[in-house]
Amino acid sequence: MGESLDVKGLCLAFFDYKTEKFVIARNKKVGVLYRLLQLGVIGYLLGWVFVVKRGYQEWDSALESSVITKLKGVTLVNASEGGTRVWDVADYVIPPQGENVFFVVTNLIVTPLQRQSKCPEHPKIPGAQCTEDKECPAGEPLSTGNGIRTGRCVPYSPGIRTCEISAWCPVENATAPRRPVLAGAENFTVFIKNTIRFPKFDFSKRNVLERAEADYLKRCRYSATAAPYCPIFRLGQLVRAAGEDFHSLAVEGGVIGVQIEWSCNLDRPASECHPVYSFNRLDAARPHLNASSSSSGYNFRFAKYYRQADGGEQRKLFKVYGIRFDVLVFGKAGRFSIVPTAVNVGSGLALLGAGAFFCDLVLLYLSKRSPFYREKKYEEARFQRGESVQMGMKRDSVTIATII
Amino acid sequence: MGESLDVKGLCLAFFDYKTEKFVIARNKKVGVLYRLLQLGVIGYLLGWVFVVKRGYQEWDSALESSVITKLKGVTLVNASEGGTRVWDVADYVIPPQGENVFFVVTNLIVTPLQRQSKCPEHPKIPGAQCTEDKECPAGEPLSTGNGIRTGRCVPYSPGIRTCEISAWCPVENATAPRRPVLAGAENFTVFIKNTIRFPKFDFSKRNVLERAEADYLKRCRYSATAAPYCPIFRLGQLVRAAGEDFHSLAVEGGVIGVQIEWSCNLDRPASECHPVYSFNRLDAARPHLNASSSSSGYNFRFAKYYRQADGGEQRKLFKVYGIRFDVLVFGKAGRFSIVPTAVNVGSGLALLGAGAFFCDLVLLYLSKRSPFYREKKYEEARFQRGESVQMGMKRDSVTIATII
Amino acid sequence: MGESLDVKGLCLAFFDYKTEKFVIARNKKVGVLYRLLQLGVIGYLLGWVFVVKRGYQEWDSALESSVITKLKGVTLVNASEGGTRVWDVADYVIPPQGENVFFVVTNLIVTPLQRQSKCPEHPKIPGAQCTEDKECPAGEPLSTGNGIRTGRCVPYSPGIRTCEISAWCPVENATAPRRPVLAGAENFTVFIKNTIRFPKFDFSKRNVLERAEADYLKRCRYSATAAPYCPIFRLGQLVRAAGEDFHSLAVEGGVIGVQIEWSCNLDRPASECHPVYSFNRLDAARPHLNASSSSSGYNFRFAKYYRQADGGEQRKLFKVYGIRFDVLVFGKAGRFSIVPTAVNVGSGLALLGAGAFFCDLVLLYLSKRSPFYREKKYEEARFQRGESVQMGMKRDSVTIATII
Repeated sequence: MGESLDVKGLCLAFFDYKTEKFVIARNKKVGVLYRLLQLGVIGYLLGWVFVVKRGYQEWDSALESSVITKLKGVTLVNASEGGTRVWDVADYVIPPQGENVFFVVTNLIVTPLQRQSKCPEHPKIPGAQCTEDKECPAGEPLSTGNGIRTGRCVPYSPGIRTCEISAWCPVENATAPRRPVLAGAENFTVFIKNTIRFPKFDFSKRNVLERAEADYLKRCRYSATAAPYCPIFRLGQLVRAAGEDFHSLAVEGGVIGVQIEWSCNLDRPASECHPVYSFNRLDAARPHLNASSSSSGYNFRFAKYYRQADGGEQRKLFKVYGIRFDVLVFGKAGRFSIVPTAVNVGSGLALLGAGAFFCDLVLLYLSKRSPFYREKKYEEARFQRGESVQMGMKRDSVTIATII
Repeated sequence: MGESLDVKGLCLAFFDYKTEKFVIARNKKVGVLYRLLQLGVIGYLLGWVFVVKRGYQEWDSALESSVITKLKGVTLVNASEGGTRVWDVADYVIPPQGENVFFVVTNLIVTPLQRQSKCPEHPKIPGAQCTEDKECPAGEPLSTGNGIRTGRCVPYSPGIRTCEISAWCPVENATAPRRPVLAGAENFTVFIKNTIRFPKFDFSKRNVLERAEADYLKRCRYSATAAPYCPIFRLGQLVRAAGEDFHSLAVEGGVIGVQIEWSCNLDRPASECHPVYSFNRLDAARPHLNASSSSSGYNFRFAKYYRQADGGEQRKLFKVYGIRFDVLVFGKAGRFSIVPTAVNVGSGLALLGAGAFFCDLVLLYLSKRSPFYREKKYEEARFQRGESVQMGMKRDSVTIATII
Repeated sequence: MGESLDVKGLCLAFFDYKTEKFVIARNKKVGVLYRLLQLGVIGYLLGWVFVVKRGYQEWDSALESSVITKLKGVTLVNASEGGTRVWDVADYVIPPQGENVFFVVTNLIVTPLQRQSKCPEHPKIPGAQCTEDKECPAGEPLSTGNGIRTGRCVPYSPGIRTCEISAWCPVENATAPRRPVLAGAENFTVFIKNTIRFPKFDFSKRNVLERAEADYLKRCRYSATAAPYCPIFRLGQLVRAAGEDFHSLAVEGGVIGVQIEWSCNLDRPASECHPVYSFNRLDAARPHLNASSSSSGYNFRFAKYYRQADGGEQRKLFKVYGIRFDVLVFGKAGRFSIVPTAVNVGSGLALLGAGAFFCDLVLLYLSKRSPFYREKKYEEARFQRGESVQMGMKRDSVTIATII
């Protein structure tokens, strides 16, 4: 029994297996309850967590995306100045370089040949109309006006006088055609190329099918049912799929979201990871506001600048209405990982323990023979035996407190 | 006692409830310690995990966002060529189409009427100054120069000779006005429309209040305290809220981040999910670098091209300084989900087990009567009784190793 | 033994410590198995979860990013109209304002001086060639054509007749130079400034080193080995690092992704959080498609508009091929947080319990003395002692069912 034996004993004891001691309570009600709880937790874990939610996978939803868009189509426009004019891609796509946000002109107000000078403000601008000069304080702009007031009140048209302004003159006429100028834009097509990458898994994919024959991409048109993976879209169809009417959208303009969703299970072959397209309108269509409200429709102004022979500068102002398409790419990828699996299994097991605790409560306090079970489950460990007997009477209250 | 009975017995036994057997140690110190640990774990779980961190929710922070911006305002500019000139939206917003990144010109250097020819390089370009032709190797560009050297050294101005270059001539004069040309940009306003969507929950929201009257959006101006949900911002106020001085920013240019944060608790009504705006400067303001450093300020060059009567091409080069606004939208949404709830509850319960393990250590090795408690807690299961008695002496070391 | 005593007893009992009772099974095989399982779980938890995966941290991968890009460089171009022409930044960067997506022109087809009129379609457009008028239905555009057919079939060149169209005439000549016009773009440099922010941790960082001397940024060039933190890149080097040949990319165009990865451990000093740059081609290089396929290369069309002296409008159409650079910023930051730590520790502990369960199975059903161990582990709790004896014979099957 020297020290060497003690160390040997310790080493041997280290490999003794200790197992929890259980008390078998032949109480069928609690037994059934426990089995049901066990079944519930295991069913939840296998059915919901692992099969439905794929809780054995680690996820990446911060994808990188690169979008290339290319429009095709030409249309005839009845120019207000008489005669027709053909608009092609270089005319109606802004900006031209084909990024994930692109704008197609569908309606426009052209104010030809403005130059810097003085002219009467447009009477529809709030506060522009006047009857005498002092209503037009010099040097102050109107908040939505086209220029800086000069301090004079001048006739705009017979019977209407407005403040004179320093501005690009003449000012823009504020009414857009009620018929969209480029109604033919409905038939334009857009080819959307999208490359995504899930950085966590270093997994890349394109929305253009690798195996597609060259010809397929020249012929196909996207259709939710017939050709869900064809990346070429008719604009009219895009707008309709978003639940909007092309004609009315073309008049006032709007923003259509083209959502590309990638939902990839990387435990399966990469070829099963497909983009799903959906479409919706992103700007607020607000029917209770009048058409001139600043929060309905979509338009912006730009100008083309010309130099005159005498060196003076002229510009042609365009207020363009149209449809902005925002290609929004999102998605998530999952791949088996030991950590989430362990976390879900581990916490499921811990919940089994909670089930046992609940059944204990029922067995020890709600069953008919609970005092008997309590005595069986809890074994007193009192150093002085005499005291133990004395305390025996309090055992009921003791165990009530102990189980919590 | 046939097979049928055995199977019946098995089935009955399957619904027996087994419960762990506990030893009650009347050690108040360890008891208090255990209760404190229990309290700590439960307090952490309820207070921190569930109330503060909302651990019962599943989260989505990969939001989709679409931003529409629209600027308003006009300002008078004292043109260098004499006389004043009005700048309006079509003149100062680049690009014009109102995306999430937009740039407002505040200062500019105009180099009028350049044409392709040969002229002396600007003397401020490093390496441009020369005294003889061989310092100017033909065909080689200077790294920050405006053109390709022709091989000659020519006078730039009285007393200064620089390499001759093939370039758009004359070259740009490299000094920007110390007073911003468009100081009035401070009073321009920008209307920022933002539509977001959390794809995981298919929840969409706009920053323009649905219930707002049409008039409100025409009158309101954003103010962190008075009108935190008004999406119309004065540029000067944006810059001030980012902690910058508008005037000095307007001279050299800069990038201001307009952050829109959406933090939505989808277990509450959608109307409680509001955007919060914050502003900060995104480019490095580097006071220790001189103004001409390539890493301070924000500017870029573009040109307007003109055709002359003789068919030759001219351009007007603009080096524009200004404020780029990056509208950065981020946020997260949470909604109750059973999986994170179960994971947090489950691992909390498992930590309770760790508390019990720690208290066991104290009870069995640090308390006065630890040998007694060890004997109570660990029951020997030895097949040969005789050996068991013999080994009894080693029980101390045995249990030390076993509890680990 | 009144009520007051009972309450006092309850309170005292609340602080009694209860500890599970264990049975020591001196079975070395199961003991070694259990220790191995314990070692495995602890090794997994400490080694994989905490050290490798940093499971004690909470993560943010939804970063905000702002990118400023600035190109430098000039190159000589042999203009098709005779003579050379210098291209500088204002000529070849589209759009000019330096956002995260920028395009550098490397090749182009210029169609000078188009005006609205009627002319024959280009014979390479599918369906354009004809022999008689009725092959050209009036008013209908060809799907990839340049205009609207007028209904006539006219000679395009000797021996070739095509449908006449209303369009910008003359139509573009569809062949791009096989030698890139701006081959010198290889030596252009781009300065990429990137500011990121992890909103969850309110942590911001820039890719331009704070401590760098002003001069460093003027001299340095990025190199994966020699200068990995220099944010100035030669275009030719970018393309080569993406595994592409600059010359062939310059002819047809393409999209190069410049990935900036931020992987920050916020438990360490912020200065250790560095960007890592990587480069790859984002558009599909599809060698099996012919060059004119709509899905290879990268190009777009834009026009410069001129007014003639007589008021007529002319335009110069550019079909530009070039390299689009998409700066894609991603990353993740982690910082210690109690919640994931508790979840990982808790579920690790619960897995230890699963190990014990597995060892119990071995001990109670696969070891030689399993009936003995079963009897020791499971203690009967039967109210009627007589029945207990009677049932003793079925104990084997009973415990088989119970352990599950």
